[in-house]
Amino acid sequence: MAGCCSVLAAFLFEYDTPRIVLIRSRKVGLMNRTVQLLILAYVIGWVFVWEKGYQEVDSVVSSITTKAKGVTVTNTSKLGFRIWDVADYVIPAQEENSLFVMTNMIITVNQTQGFCPEVPDKTTVCTTDADCTAGSAGTHSSGVATGRCVPFNGTVKTCEVAAWCPVEDDRHVPKPAFLKAAENFTLLVKNNIWYPKFNFSKRNILPNITTAYLKSCVYDAATDPFCPIFRLGKIVQSAGHSFADMAVEGGIMGIQIKWNCNLDRAASHCLPRYSFRRLDTRDLDHNVSPGYNFRFAKYYSDPTGTEHRTLIKAYGIRFDIIVFGKAGKFNIIPTMINVGSGLALLGVATVLCDIIVLYCMKKRYYYREKKYKYVEDYEQGIGSEMDR
Amino acid sequence: MAGCCSVLAAFLFEYDTPRIVLIRSRKVGLMNRTVQLLILAYVIGWVFVWEKGYQEVDSVVSSITTKAKGVTVTNTSKLGFRIWDVADYVIPAQEENSLFVMTNMIITVNQTQGFCPEVPDKTTVCTTDADCTAGSAGTHSSGVATGRCVPFNGTVKTCEVAAWCPVEDDRHVPKPAFLKAAENFTLLVKNNIWYPKFNFSKRNILPNITTAYLKSCVYDAATDPFCPIFRLGKIVQSAGHSFADMAVEGGIMGIQIKWNCNLDRAASHCLPRYSFRRLDTRDLDHNVSPGYNFRFAKYYSDPTGTEHRTLIKAYGIRFDIIVFGKAGKFNIIPTMINVGSGLALLGVATVLCDIIVLYCMKKRYYYREKKYKYVEDYEQGIGSEMDR
Amino acid sequence: MAGCCSVLAAFLFEYDTPRIVLIRSRKVGLMNRTVQLLILAYVIGWVFVWEKGYQEVDSVVSSITTKAKGVTVTNTSKLGFRIWDVADYVIPAQEENSLFVMTNMIITVNQTQGFCPEVPDKTTVCTTDADCTAGSAGTHSSGVATGRCVPFNGTVKTCEVAAWCPVEDDRHVPKPAFLKAAENFTLLVKNNIWYPKFNFSKRNILPNITTAYLKSCVYDAATDPFCPIFRLGKIVQSAGHSFADMAVEGGIMGIQIKWNCNLDRAASHCLPRYSFRRLDTRDLDHNVSPGYNFRFAKYYSDPTGTEHRTLIKAYGIRFDIIVFGKAGKFNIIPTMINVGSGLALLGVATVLCDIIVLYCMKKRYYYREKKYKYVEDYEQGIGSEMDR
Repeated sequence: MAGCCSVLAAFLFEYDTPRIVLIRSRKVGLMNRTVQLLILAYVIGWVFVWEKGYQEVDSVVSSITTKAKGVTVTNTSKLGFRIWDVADYVIPAQEENSLFVMTNMIITVNQTQGFCPEVPDKTTVCTTDADCTAGSAGTHSSGVATGRCVPFNGTVKTCEVAAWCPVEDDRHVPKPAFLKAAENFTLLVKNNIWYPKFNFSKRNILPNITTAYLKSCVYDAATDPFCPIFRLGKIVQSAGHSFADMAVEGGIMGIQIKWNCNLDRAASHCLPRYSFRRLDTRDLDHNVSPGYNFRFAKYYSDPTGTEHRTLIKAYGIRFDIIVFGKAGKFNIIPTMINVGSGLALLGVATVLCDIIVLYCMKKRYYYREKKYKYVEDYEQGIGSEMDR
Repeated sequence: MAGCCSVLAAFLFEYDTPRIVLIRSRKVGLMNRTVQLLILAYVIGWVFVWEKGYQEVDSVVSSITTKAKGVTVTNTSKLGFRIWDVADYVIPAQEENSLFVMTNMIITVNQTQGFCPEVPDKTTVCTTDADCTAGSAGTHSSGVATGRCVPFNGTVKTCEVAAWCPVEDDRHVPKPAFLKAAENFTLLVKNNIWYPKFNFSKRNILPNITTAYLKSCVYDAATDPFCPIFRLGKIVQSAGHSFADMAVEGGIMGIQIKWNCNLDRAASHCLPRYSFRRLDTRDLDHNVSPGYNFRFAKYYSDPTGTEHRTLIKAYGIRFDIIVFGKAGKFNIIPTMINVGSGLALLGVATVLCDIIVLYCMKKRYYYREKKYKYVEDYEQGIGSEMDR
Repeated sequence: MAGCCSVLAAFLFEYDTPRIVLIRSRKVGLMNRTVQLLILAYVIGWVFVWEKGYQEVDSVVSSITTKAKGVTVTNTSKLGFRIWDVADYVIPAQEENSLFVMTNMIITVNQTQGFCPEVPDKTTVCTTDADCTAGSAGTHSSGVATGRCVPFNGTVKTCEVAAWCPVEDDRHVPKPAFLKAAENFTLLVKNNIWYPKFNFSKRNILPNITTAYLKSCVYDAATDPFCPIFRLGKIVQSAGHSFADMAVEGGIMGIQIKWNCNLDRAASHCLPRYSFRRLDTRDLDHNVSPGYNFRFAKYYSDPTGTEHRTLIKAYGIRFDIIVFGKAGKFNIIPTMINVGSGLALLGVATVLCDIIVLYCMKKRYYYREKKYKYVEDYEQGIGSEMDR
């Protein structure tokens, strides 16, 4: 017990500090302080001030709503004079993080289930029934082959298929784009973001935006950087592309909203930054499978009860709203990790200078004498102890 | 070669340890041990136990399916007695991470392409044809102006437009909400999560939930916290809002599913936590552009082949399912980083006490004598070596 | 001032290095070097080479488009001989990160608003009007009860409801699946990824893929691992399930695209890895609420203006495209953090060997003599200073 107490007392009331050799040398001293200063500058300047190493980081959780506005008129031989409003060109009517605006289309009206010739291409052109395999349906077929070879028009014969007839002929995409006037349509993006770790949330319609301003503003990077209403043509233009070109075969535009917030500052400094990027083409030299399109149908029932449909191959621009960003707020743990690592790094200064002093300088043996105390193994060293 | 061997032997069979001054002083010793204890308590208590600094972290990858259930009846002069079931009020029928339930609407039946007067507002009211610019279409226009000024009703004249006629009149939103009974509808949310780094997956329909329980349970934070069926009214109420109010102009509700899992424990401890948050309003004082609505149309074909449509401006609540969370599992690297930083931080105790012992205490010169060994530059120091 | 200068000079031109005891002992030396080597091997081998601890990491931001292709024929008594193409079985026509393919269905044609008997089950079977509560609508009801008990067929009477009549009878799911031929349909996935921190973007249609290859290839893990066209049956099979079984009640398949890129290497090494996982079932023993289905309707208008609809309860497979992954690139901060922690960890070797040398070995008192210099508190120690 007494032994225990004395050991405990020895432990508690003891303070151990390493013994130091202080070498007064201009050269070595300056080098040492320089290296220590560099390390300190790196830790304080880069890690803490620039990269904010004292902050804990969280990723954004986001919710989007979109709404397009705009009307246009077209006049073609097939459809005649026709108005197109939001319910006509936004398909589907609502999506979570994106909005599709149809800009071009191939429309096949009044399709009914039946038998008709396929559209001519390498695999469907035929001369006799033997060229067509009954029951086959290729990846690009409009229907299932019946096995008969029938005339497609006055000059060509193709395999007959069981399909929605007449089959769609998508060999020629209308140029210029059918609804190229969509360039002037507008898109309102409402975005609510939340950083769960810090329970901080904000909308992209900032507190200082009034209803009057919102009714008339249009986003401009210089004059109205926080107006959430975007003119479609400008979105495409800002990404370095031409709306008229893009509208022919369609494409995907990304509207990127970056929310990088420093939550150690006031909430009013946490603002959205908009940028635009085309998402569907990577490389002009390797432009395989360009554009964006999908097929949908409107179904009708005639008085006899027979179902018929209008098939629309819709080309258009899908606007994906991509919200990303990180918020940082002071937290003791990353601070301590970086402080700890910084302290350990200061040890590098000592290692470096030690190498120079003890192995490179003229007086290295002299310095080694001062730093080291050699101790031989007990049995061997009892007679030849070199205590310097 | 022999020189090489001896250098290698010297390197391998040598052990260097710093020489230490052990100062037996109650004051300094206690202070030293206290600082070391605080640092240890921080590292072990906060970093390892509370913040789980020994764990590697991964973000959740999630997949959601939703299904609404419920029927209601409405009786209005415009539509008469009408049943509304899931296929009528969930638009579109399926989405990936959200579900829209229509609660209110402005319906314009039997629209056909034609010419008709615009709805009166500041920009459309006119007295003569000169007030209307042919070919113009404002952001909020229903169609393209023809240039004529025609009577809207007995008292007002507005610019005529080429549009789907009659144009929609959305000046008055029905109050109370048309489908306010949607409050009693239910929403089943099936969520499958996966942590790729740990290859751990789980469903929110927990292993102990039976088919019988699932057929009849309703989520309640206290009594049934793991039932994945939510009553719509309760979702809105839990977020602190009134369903009846929200149903008029619509809105966005977030159903947040948090999966924070400690994978060092049994998988059965990894459970979903549900919370609800309204996502579309931030600030009651700055309530610009409230609610949520979109337009869609149902297209019909009459016996003559003319297309007509019913335009519906649907107000409703979109339920966004937001899944987030992190899983942690023991990993040697973050453990070692934190151990390493902790060790380096213990050095702070020495630095602190050194400052006090060597610069503040009465006996500082005495202690400095014990700790430091001053070595002058070789040439200068040969005669005045102070070896203490 | 002079005092200031001398203090500054003393600070700048001084270099302090700890005094070291070099113990020449085979046992301790080898142990010391072994522990140091293990720590170095861990830091360099595991932290830097394996886990790439010198890299800063960023998560992927992704954009997806999908397109299904394929046609099939069905022949049933209810619907007759019918072709199904993309516009018929992909519902809705386009979504952002997923694609639903209908594989089975329960179709109720020609529903009109009216009164009719409910489908018989535990809650709806009745004998007299007293068994039915007028105005009630259970969670699984097709409509609102009128309070009357009417014959459902020759043997059973059920409560009458105001609903879309005739009500849907979903008691028997067609088996085998109606559109089981969907197994041969194909799905093209176009994916564009972006790492914001490094401003690096890439498509999954790699630069070396030609239009000819894309027109005919099908994904195979061994022979065509980068072809972005997947055969639906193969997707399900790769996840270890049977398409024919899954097609009956539907389900959710995850197509996982992993983009783990080391951006210190050439961009051509950054490639997508495809894997497949079924997302809707967790546990065969607890198979509650299996499959995936939703209801949608096609609305028609007959010559009298009455609206009628076809209700479809669509069972099918929803393919969720899940893109995840991290990119790493060399960055000085994580490197320095790991270097710093590694350096601090080397201190563990010293602590470990110290314990052995000073407390466990035979010659421990001898070594302690060499390492420590005991200094008593000044007043106490002036006479009994033990300076060894």
